[in-house]
Amino acid sequence: MEPIKIGLLGLGTVGGGTVSVLTRNAQEISRRAGRDIVISHAAAKFYDPNKINGLNQINRISDDAWAVVNDPEVEIVIELIGGYSPARELVLKAIENGKQIVTANKALIARHGDEIFAAAQTRGVTVAFEAAVAGGIPIIKALREGLTANRIQWIAGIINGTANFILTEMRSKGRAFKDALADAQKLGYAEADPTFDIEGIDAAHKLTILASIAFGIPLQFSRAYVEGISNIDSIDVAYADKLGYRIKLLGITRRVSAGIELRVHPTLISKRRLIAHVDGVMNAVLVHGDAVGATLYYGAGAGSEPTASAVVADVVDIVRALTTDPENRVPHLAFQPNELSNVPILPITQVETAYYLRLSVEDKVGVMAQIAGILAEEGISIEAIQQKEADNAKTVPLIMLIHEVVEEKINRAIQRIENLENVTGSVVRIRVEQLDG
Amino acid sequence: MEPIKIGLLGLGTVGGGTVSVLTRNAQEISRRAGRDIVISHAAAKFYDPNKINGLNQINRISDDAWAVVNDPEVEIVIELIGGYSPARELVLKAIENGKQIVTANKALIARHGDEIFAAAQTRGVTVAFEAAVAGGIPIIKALREGLTANRIQWIAGIINGTANFILTEMRSKGRAFKDALADAQKLGYAEADPTFDIEGIDAAHKLTILASIAFGIPLQFSRAYVEGISNIDSIDVAYADKLGYRIKLLGITRRVSAGIELRVHPTLISKRRLIAHVDGVMNAVLVHGDAVGATLYYGAGAGSEPTASAVVADVVDIVRALTTDPENRVPHLAFQPNELSNVPILPITQVETAYYLRLSVEDKVGVMAQIAGILAEEGISIEAIQQKEADNAKTVPLIMLIHEVVEEKINRAIQRIENLENVTGSVVRIRVEQLDG
Repeated sequence: MEPIKIGLLGLGTVGGGTVSVLTRNAQEISRRAGRDIVISHAAAKFYDPNKINGLNQINRISDDAWAVVNDPEVEIVIELIGGYSPARELVLKAIENGKQIVTANKALIARHGDEIFAAAQTRGVTVAFEAAVAGGIPIIKALREGLTANRIQWIAGIINGTANFILTEMRSKGRAFKDALADAQKLGYAEADPTFDIEGIDAAHKLTILASIAFGIPLQFSRAYVEGISNIDSIDVAYADKLGYRIKLLGITRRVSAGIELRVHPTLISKRRLIAHVDGVMNAVLVHGDAVGATLYYGAGAGSEPTASAVVADVVDIVRALTTDPENRVPHLAFQPNELSNVPILPITQVETAYYLRLSVEDKVGVMAQIAGILAEEGISIEAIQQKEADNAKTVPLIMLIHEVVEEKINRAIQRIENLENVTGSVVRIRVEQLDG
Repeated sequence: MEPIKIGLLGLGTVGGGTVSVLTRNAQEISRRAGRDIVISHAAAKFYDPNKINGLNQINRISDDAWAVVNDPEVEIVIELIGGYSPARELVLKAIENGKQIVTANKALIARHGDEIFAAAQTRGVTVAFEAAVAGGIPIIKALREGLTANRIQWIAGIINGTANFILTEMRSKGRAFKDALADAQKLGYAEADPTFDIEGIDAAHKLTILASIAFGIPLQFSRAYVEGISNIDSIDVAYADKLGYRIKLLGITRRVSAGIELRVHPTLISKRRLIAHVDGVMNAVLVHGDAVGATLYYGAGAGSEPTASAVVADVVDIVRALTTDPENRVPHLAFQPNELSNVPILPITQVETAYYLRLSVEDKVGVMAQIAGILAEEGISIEAIQQKEADNAKTVPLIMLIHEVVEEKINRAIQRIENLENVTGSVVRIRVEQLDG
């Protein structure tokens, strides 16, 4: 059989890794796929030829991405440019030209996925995006195919390696947030502008995709609640540790009777949960289905070859499915396009979670009673209270664990507590998840 | 489109779960598969109608399995009888009749897989067996499809829930092996005859399948090295814990220059590894690929609905691939049938691992020097030695950690050490794995 011909957009970290993996493992891959895979045409604005093994196997390299998507020889276009534009226009043009698409672009899929999948559906081609979520971990495949028997109940994922690295450094070395971030930047784990990673936006892109696939709903990035880790104080990481918890930046999506929760925020998780032990830049996604129970998928969520691993797996999947009727292929969002449902995404104020609270109080008789009184009036029940060593002459830190309560109630209670005369500064609050079923 | 018609063999734990899941999640599954799935014909010798929801959806139930595989209406046969015979004959007959096959039968695949896959290949049908390894965890799919880009280097799995439960009880409650086994039997986690689970045979069946898929080699159950947990003493579980290790029954397969390692045995793993924290009846498989690095897959390895989750996922996969050319489908053993290689399986004496050793020695001057001398002569290097509190008036336990060495050398050294006058009884030895790349 003729080799399958790839057009590659982008020769950066992931593009270079894709060339290297396809070259080094050509034989292994072809023994599995039953067909050789060659990159016949690549385009990149800048790249470092010394960093990529196998560039000499590519027939044509230029800086013209449009030439690749319009090349009649190219059967599969791999988009590894990133960002919204011109990635969107290039992908739509490639679809129009009847190319199959593989992309690692989570932002593109989270924001423009519905448009792109509709175009692909009309043209009878596939858009594969395993590499867009959690790098080398085959989590899209697990959700779309491995767990098809299940009604998915919830997903909780550590899906940003930069944030997980920073939180791990804060816990294991007692580093402050800004020092841990500087370390991450020095090691190449964080970008010069780290906003997308530390403020949870990257995680929200990925979570949006996971939620859509899990529940059969349209992609709704704009409705996600997003809170990053830049306000996490290392003292809370240490207090959480003593209480038996780790703090992780989690992407959580859950089906409840009123709708779907879609939220990214720092979260306390009991050390008894396996996912609490996922450290450094590693990612993990915990999925709860009604038949299978809890399953967890762990691995490298970023990096050159781990991401390339997912890109190439998508290519092989497409090669295998080329002779299939398009309507029998795995649907882009797991459910048949006419079977998506419009369950609403809940606003964060309607979400129920447990809480960790830290207050600075003046060490006077009656303060605790006032706080407990407010919580009781709001119908909020306390799981534990600990008074810590005084942090200065005047105030002592008070740590509270609060049972599950709807967010608008705790918001009201916190506001009232902050107004108390003997409470100084703001109340620190971090959500707590059980993740036990 | 017409519903797809299933013939079901067996209505026990997994068969009952399959009926329940297909009934309860019928709508969710059909929204994904684009087609309804109905069980049109089932056969079972015994079953409890009160335990299975959805039996009334099945058109015909009898005790005649042959009638199911010969039913012209049935398109997919699900084999959930277990054991070698008549499962093998029924599956071969169903293949001959042109049925697609789904099975959860690890023993059947490990022993007769090559014959069954060859017959399926000739007839142009698929034999799917996700449920045969690690229950609801989609590990077969991850290896065959999710990681196709990789040259797999090694796999290490906790793939027997009964053994993992027993070892967890021994560690967390200090139970003796036989008491923990009795607990497992009371809870329904172990059978009346627990041999297959505690002696590692079940794990070896599963490992044989994983190795074949990972490395593109024929199924070679008879060449697996198999050692169970029935000789594990709770004192070693406790000593290992103090040294920073957990003892797990691991199935390990690794590609080294001389061949493929294929072995099941109790293993010390550092607590720094995520897999060391997989407790109770849960399973986990750690896979190391050259591009992706380490990935881990965790979930319920057995049980009614977790296993049914994998069975039904296989059914949906088959439904989706029905219109494909058979030669473009995912190959049974991940590699194209004419691309299997004959890399030899190494005998255990040629395998290199690190070791934990426990000796009982008389507390006399010079004993330690004698032991260290023997090890040095055999070219074996010691990582650590700890003398423990005396266990009786005469002898003290000596714990040693030994660096990686080929097994035949440590065998010789142990024999010489056991012959020393001041060493009493046998040397306890448990292999140690780093699992770090």
